[in-house]
Amino acid sequence: MVINMNLKITIQYDGTKYKGWQIQNNTEETIQGKIEAVLNRMFGYQIDVIGSGRTDAGVHAVAQVANFHLKEKTNLDLEVLLDNLNLYLPEDIAVTQICEVDERFHARFSAISKTYRYRIHIGNISNVFERKYVYNYKGDFLNVEDMKIAANYLLGEHDFKCFCANKHMKKSTVRTINSIDIEKTATEIVITYNGNGFLQNMVRIMTGTLIEVGCGKMRALDIPSILDSLDRERSGYTAPASGLCLIEVNY
Amino acid sequence: MVINMNLKITIQYDGTKYKGWQIQNNTEETIQGKIEAVLNRMFGYQIDVIGSGRTDAGVHAVAQVANFHLKEKTNLDLEVLLDNLNLYLPEDIAVTQICEVDERFHARFSAISKTYRYRIHIGNISNVFERKYVYNYKGDFLNVEDMKIAANYLLGEHDFKCFCANKHMKKSTVRTINSIDIEKTATEIVITYNGNGFLQNMVRIMTGTLIEVGCGKMRALDIPSILDSLDRERSGYTAPASGLCLIEVNY
Repeated sequence: MVINMNLKITIQYDGTKYKGWQIQNNTEETIQGKIEAVLNRMFGYQIDVIGSGRTDAGVHAVAQVANFHLKEKTNLDLEVLLDNLNLYLPEDIAVTQICEVDERFHARFSAISKTYRYRIHIGNISNVFERKYVYNYKGDFLNVEDMKIAANYLLGEHDFKCFCANKHMKKSTVRTINSIDIEKTATEIVITYNGNGFLQNMVRIMTGTLIEVGCGKMRALDIPSILDSLDRERSGYTAPASGLCLIEVNY
Repeated sequence: MVINMNLKITIQYDGTKYKGWQIQNNTEETIQGKIEAVLNRMFGYQIDVIGSGRTDAGVHAVAQVANFHLKEKTNLDLEVLLDNLNLYLPEDIAVTQICEVDERFHARFSAISKTYRYRIHIGNISNVFERKYVYNYKGDFLNVEDMKIAANYLLGEHDFKCFCANKHMKKSTVRTINSIDIEKTATEIVITYNGNGFLQNMVRIMTGTLIEVGCGKMRALDIPSILDSLDRERSGYTAPASGLCLIEVNY
């Protein structure tokens, strides 16, 4: 079969009620599953939607990227297709862009880097409107300067095995983190990560570790030896999914 | 009984799942009901929470104001009371401020003016994260200049009977609108109303009317005669509750 049309879509979703991006079995509620279901109904045949990567259950996306192939190149009006997709998708998933791309474009393999943002709400009074998109942290005071020192040790290429939830990971756990920016406002600490790829739960475990450094439970200068240990037991806890959002995929 | 302590609270809520501010009967889910339930349990006697005014089912508030009286002046730590209130309130209601006020302060009667904001989301692609806090308008193009001309006719003191959902309103329907600001961004039209008081559904009917002017279904210059008619049939439709938020109560 000749592949005639490769379409790239950008997707925004509130992941609160989904079991993550990736289809797990036919009955599960996933973002990929919802999009494929609409496309299959529209085109009348099975369409596989390839995401840039999985997001965990409860994790959000401002701009997840995916691509899919249509069997034949039709005189498709992409704006109409976009409108129809949004008409049939649930209200917590929206396709924000659609465009035709080169046949060789692959949402996962072509990705150069990804940006994730983790929002920690601090203080006793939660923001009721943002409650599903932040981690409502109720613990001890967080020292942002210490968190920044710890974050610095995570930059560059490392074996991030100790920040991976999958204990039986057979493939390489080496990744490169390009930047970790930590900003503090009156009510939030926002951590923005950019890297060439992230392991399962990696951003959430890095965030939990930075929080443990921030509240004094761990020392920033222990991060290198934690990395070297490759031991999940030595890194911090897994911060909740609600605070995490995939911001951008760079190609 | 001597009233010994009058407390003023500021409340933020996501009104999506509530039947509005005001208790309607004991079984209804209302904001006032939720707050009273927590206070009654805390203090062991019935406490009446007086709101600055009702908000309809589904309407939100960034800063609703209310007050309540405690039977006796105790050595109450207000910060602890605030924390406890937030601990027991549902996650879509938060008390953001609490302070002791003069015995004569009354959240409704002492209010000088109120500010409401109505958010209209425009365009085919909805923002999934804000979907519960906007009106996802899918109709014809809205001419904001015409809406501004129409809004100008609503300023000042008028009998707003034609903008009142309660047909059997016996009390005066005269109110004063101090300002109506209309701002347009790439994805939203935001209308901010300030006035000395608002009738039932008044902001939503004014918004529906401005939308009908914006899309050309009504003419801006007909607003004065619609006001004069005192006829609900002549004003526009009631815009959905989701887009409306009480922003501020001024004393």
